[in-house]
Amino acid sequence: MSTAETAIDALKAQVCALHAELIRWGLVAWTSGNVSARVPGRELMVIKPSGVPYEDLTPDTMIVTDLEGEVVDGHHQPSSDTAAHAYVYRNMPEVGGVVHTHSPYATAWSAAGEPIPCAITAMGDEFGDDIPVGPFALIGDHSIGEGIVATLKGHRSPAVLMRGHGVFTIGKDAKAAVKAAVMCEDVARTVHLARQLGPVPRLGQDDIDKLHDRYRNVYGQQDTTTTGAGA
Amino acid sequence: MSTAETAIDALKAQVCALHAELIRWGLVAWTSGNVSARVPGRELMVIKPSGVPYEDLTPDTMIVTDLEGEVVDGHHQPSSDTAAHAYVYRNMPEVGGVVHTHSPYATAWSAAGEPIPCAITAMGDEFGDDIPVGPFALIGDHSIGEGIVATLKGHRSPAVLMRGHGVFTIGKDAKAAVKAAVMCEDVARTVHLARQLGPVPRLGQDDIDKLHDRYRNVYGQQDTTTTGAGA
Amino acid sequence: MSTAETAIDALKAQVCALHAELIRWGLVAWTSGNVSARVPGRELMVIKPSGVPYEDLTPDTMIVTDLEGEVVDGHHQPSSDTAAHAYVYRNMPEVGGVVHTHSPYATAWSAAGEPIPCAITAMGDEFGDDIPVGPFALIGDHSIGEGIVATLKGHRSPAVLMRGHGVFTIGKDAKAAVKAAVMCEDVARTVHLARQLGPVPRLGQDDIDKLHDRYRNVYGQQDTTTTGAGA
Amino acid sequence: MSTAETAIDALKAQVCALHAELIRWGLVAWTSGNVSARVPGRELMVIKPSGVPYEDLTPDTMIVTDLEGEVVDGHHQPSSDTAAHAYVYRNMPEVGGVVHTHSPYATAWSAAGEPIPCAITAMGDEFGDDIPVGPFALIGDHSIGEGIVATLKGHRSPAVLMRGHGVFTIGKDAKAAVKAAVMCEDVARTVHLARQLGPVPRLGQDDIDKLHDRYRNVYGQQDTTTTGAGA
Repeated sequence: MSTAETAIDALKAQVCALHAELIRWGLVAWTSGNVSARVPGRELMVIKPSGVPYEDLTPDTMIVTDLEGEVVDGHHQPSSDTAAHAYVYRNMPEVGGVVHTHSPYATAWSAAGEPIPCAITAMGDEFGDDIPVGPFALIGDHSIGEGIVATLKGHRSPAVLMRGHGVFTIGKDAKAAVKAAVMCEDVARTVHLARQLGPVPRLGQDDIDKLHDRYRNVYGQQDTTTTGAGA
Repeated sequence: MSTAETAIDALKAQVCALHAELIRWGLVAWTSGNVSARVPGRELMVIKPSGVPYEDLTPDTMIVTDLEGEVVDGHHQPSSDTAAHAYVYRNMPEVGGVVHTHSPYATAWSAAGEPIPCAITAMGDEFGDDIPVGPFALIGDHSIGEGIVATLKGHRSPAVLMRGHGVFTIGKDAKAAVKAAVMCEDVARTVHLARQLGPVPRLGQDDIDKLHDRYRNVYGQQDTTTTGAGA
Repeated sequence: MSTAETAIDALKAQVCALHAELIRWGLVAWTSGNVSARVPGRELMVIKPSGVPYEDLTPDTMIVTDLEGEVVDGHHQPSSDTAAHAYVYRNMPEVGGVVHTHSPYATAWSAAGEPIPCAITAMGDEFGDDIPVGPFALIGDHSIGEGIVATLKGHRSPAVLMRGHGVFTIGKDAKAAVKAAVMCEDVARTVHLARQLGPVPRLGQDDIDKLHDRYRNVYGQQDTTTTGAGA
Repeated sequence: MSTAETAIDALKAQVCALHAELIRWGLVAWTSGNVSARVPGRELMVIKPSGVPYEDLTPDTMIVTDLEGEVVDGHHQPSSDTAAHAYVYRNMPEVGGVVHTHSPYATAWSAAGEPIPCAITAMGDEFGDDIPVGPFALIGDHSIGEGIVATLKGHRSPAVLMRGHGVFTIGKDAKAAVKAAVMCEDVARTVHLARQLGPVPRLGQDDIDKLHDRYRNVYGQQDTTTTGAGA
């Protein structure tokens, strides 16, 4: 087995395992969420097969496609969201992982068409701003991918609420994108609950800047093998 | 053992196993939900026994009844909702599976007597429309079955919110009906949460039509052994 | 070992096991719920020890008290709610099991001081009416027990929302009381969620009467070993 | 191994195990919560490492720091909240355990900047008052610790809602602080849910005083090895 094949096999195992995190943190119902990873240094990505229950996922069932979404290796159809993942990888070279979910609180904000205001320090840390709303877009062509990239390019937030649809998150690798998806639902819930109590003040911009800067820099320098969350 | 008996045994195992999905996805409390399946090509159905805890269900405890709800095989009484399931099978020959739950968010919409507006793409995919409210009906005769059929016949939605009662879903088989029940609660929750944030716009009818058409046709042709959910 | 001792041992095992249902259905936090059972034909009851984590409960840790709450057998203090349980057994001879929880939705109704309106058929079945609010009462004497009995005696509901405190449920045995506690939280949640959508109409009294009558009688005659919940 | 080393090893095992309670009771997402314990009689504390997933925590991964937060023993960076924990131990000698979470309902109250009113008897027991809001403070110096101590010193409540951030709880040991964190989220949820139903009356001050006094004294004398929660 070549080194390249070994690297892809390791990525298949990682992407497969990360789907369990979507279940664990309550982000998905039935088969409605997916994780992908870019194959470093190659025009390829690894993504969930379409319509396979999470408990039946194994590394072998993962699909390898090129960055146009064409299947290179795999026995199933790739996720129906493959075109959106591929568009992100083509247009954001710094992105190594993409996650899509319909997690309930975040999707509720997307259905209301309202950004999640940066009202708690955990949002300052991870998102550095409000979590933005992207355009409504239908599946079937590049529209969803374009909407993700247009919203997230140059934005601090690794998460976008696609209007009337759900969440896409990005990261330097698949694990970081999964973490962003978990944190997005967590803060979407907390700020939603706060809104039921009354008006929720956004943090001061200066405080948000300091939180985000410290989180990106102090954490990153300490330990590049883990992704902390304020703990 | 005859081929017919083997087919019924397989169906008993499948219906039994699908009840675990009701627990897994939080659709039921105590014993308050049930799954049934039509025996293909025969005037029979397999359904949950009445009042047996989910953890005590085994394939052998499943009940076989005719399509009037009379027990043909089984050691317990069939579910108290048997008449409603049977009515659906008698009047909707395309239906191969029926599920009933009191899942909390969907039942909340039924208690408020309000359809769930088709406000997110996952609803366009799976339900193709708002999830409709059926009439209030008492248990004990054909009223519930009539209400289900009157509401769902000719409707795209495989789910009906029976007013002041709970949810019934249908599918080409029991698994598809269970999936519809899981997705019904998922979208009932998401749209409920969105409503707390402000007015929730329905998707455009043209977009709903496109989503539903694509979901039914593109998915269906790719792989008939799985039932995808936008993933 | 005498027959009486064997009966008490069996009851200890049952009461111990039923506490797992409080955890399973999300009714309790830390150690904040308890189950008891009357010893049939004797002036004794079996109840949870005080302050012991649920995972450390074994049949041997269960406490036997008389119906004044004095310990007859056991190595720990009995639950701090023992006086309330004992009062119920002394004054409601038909009661064989009592459960107390602070389950979140039901306790929210108790904090708001509002009965849960009988708005869904599952409430008609199990409770036969609104779930009533009992008086505010402090722990330490017979006040809580008196409030429970004054509210539930002659009422169809096996559950009372003690104002600003939590839920007490009763049953012919401990399992029935646990079932009432599970169903109480389930309907408290559903009707709470419905209220967020708009006004929630109570079912017609005549319909409630029919539901409750059928549930008590048709179910009861079919199978006395199980307690169905509309399934 | 010296007696002191044995004591620290036992504390590492206990602090490690208590993190599982944060997961079990739904208080944390990803790695966003931490537990610490003072080493009795020494100017040391044991705390979670930074950014390590809960399932990878072992006693050996726990970090020992002095009460300025400088690492004395351990292979990882200590939690990014170490400065806040250390400040509490330096300034509140009666405190033996500290917990920090972003548990969703409690953090929602903190984002709204509103104390949780003492509206249920479980709050009178455990908190003896409203759960107070502390100041907004940025991570990186002593501000968070100062805010915790300024709010909790002389207050009955072992929990403070740090504005726009999350919860810190204290206790005589780490287990008591974890219990306070679990109960804080439980009552934060219940009172939040009650608020959706209408105005929620605070309990009378005299009743709160009686509840808290009884809980602290009657429970404490009965059994010092357990920490009851009204059960």
